[in-house]
Amino acid sequence: MKRIITIGREFGSGGRELGRRLSEQLGIAYYDKEIVSEIAKRTALSEEYVQQIMEHRPLISFPITIGRSFSPVGDAAFEQSQAIFRQQHEIIQELAKKSDCVIVGRCGDYILRDLDPLRIFVYADMESRMERCRSRAREGEDLSDKALQKMIRKVDKERKQYYEFYTGLVWGDRLNYDLCVNTGSRPLKDISAAVARLIGG
Amino acid sequence: MKRIITIGREFGSGGRELGRRLSEQLGIAYYDKEIVSEIAKRTALSEEYVQQIMEHRPLISFPITIGRSFSPVGDAAFEQSQAIFRQQHEIIQELAKKSDCVIVGRCGDYILRDLDPLRIFVYADMESRMERCRSRAREGEDLSDKALQKMIRKVDKERKQYYEFYTGLVWGDRLNYDLCVNTGSRPLKDISAAVARLIGG
Repeated sequence: MKRIITIGREFGSGGRELGRRLSEQLGIAYYDKEIVSEIAKRTALSEEYVQQIMEHRPLISFPITIGRSFSPVGDAAFEQSQAIFRQQHEIIQELAKKSDCVIVGRCGDYILRDLDPLRIFVYADMESRMERCRSRAREGEDLSDKALQKMIRKVDKERKQYYEFYTGLVWGDRLNYDLCVNTGSRPLKDISAAVARLIGG
Repeated sequence: MKRIITIGREFGSGGRELGRRLSEQLGIAYYDKEIVSEIAKRTALSEEYVQQIMEHRPLISFPITIGRSFSPVGDAAFEQSQAIFRQQHEIIQELAKKSDCVIVGRCGDYILRDLDPLRIFVYADMESRMERCRSRAREGEDLSDKALQKMIRKVDKERKQYYEFYTGLVWGDRLNYDLCVNTGSRPLKDISAAVARLIGG
């Protein structure tokens, strides 16, 4: 049986670290930045630009109606977001068909739904998410508690909007996942071992 | 380390079966009807009556005010629900202190919070819950789909009200649990093995 794991995650909950651990433990691929690089290659856009687009849902621009005429002019930025999502969709499907893998974020659960992935959602209480953010912050990056909480909520909001725009599903709704794990209460290495057991590793 | 597992669950999601499997797999106690029997013994009420009370939050009756006087008359049924919950609280704590165990429902996660239990919430999509209900129905019990759904929603609502009345927490809110598992998408035996791995079994 194919072993494909998708991980949706709240910001600062350690979803990426769990993904890496799982890929090592199971000896399967872990795709993250590779997807961005591949999109950049295929679209001739810079990786930074692709990354930035991928973190936000496109802003919908309404068609301009002048009198009774209807302007067919599209919105270039909107079209580009859509094109990048289509590329992402294609690349993720190609990768997952090629070999067993872990895919973090990027609507992987939705894009790979026909391959029956193990869909995980990773979450934690605000306090442990703040702690995790601080532990991995670069030197000199020293936000106040209030500013850090605001940042965490902002990123979550963007992930939610992005996910819901492209999937039509509710981000974090347990029914969209096979397993939701609280990384605030158990060590990641134990969680990783349990998840590996669930997928037969 | 003590191994205590508490299981909150949507009706028809197989929480009780998961609890039984876990207790067998880990070789630890499984408490369910024993708690009702013990309450009945300690309160001299019938098991059926205790069971019935335990499935509903108490109805709060407001004190009757006549003119300016305030009637101190309590509500016997309300008092009795509270007394049964207190007994349940005490018994669950006694049992968990005595030995490792699995406790299904009964606000076990809240009652045992100081013992750091592994708190699981079990859920599934409506379709698989209906299927599970049908598979365990007694002969002759043949509800229409609509009636069965209504029944499932009613029991969930009662569980929610009961849990929220006694704990002040939101039933099913992922932050109150260490792990939420979807029994609609993976076999219970695999889920049980993964959970056992998480608690070190």
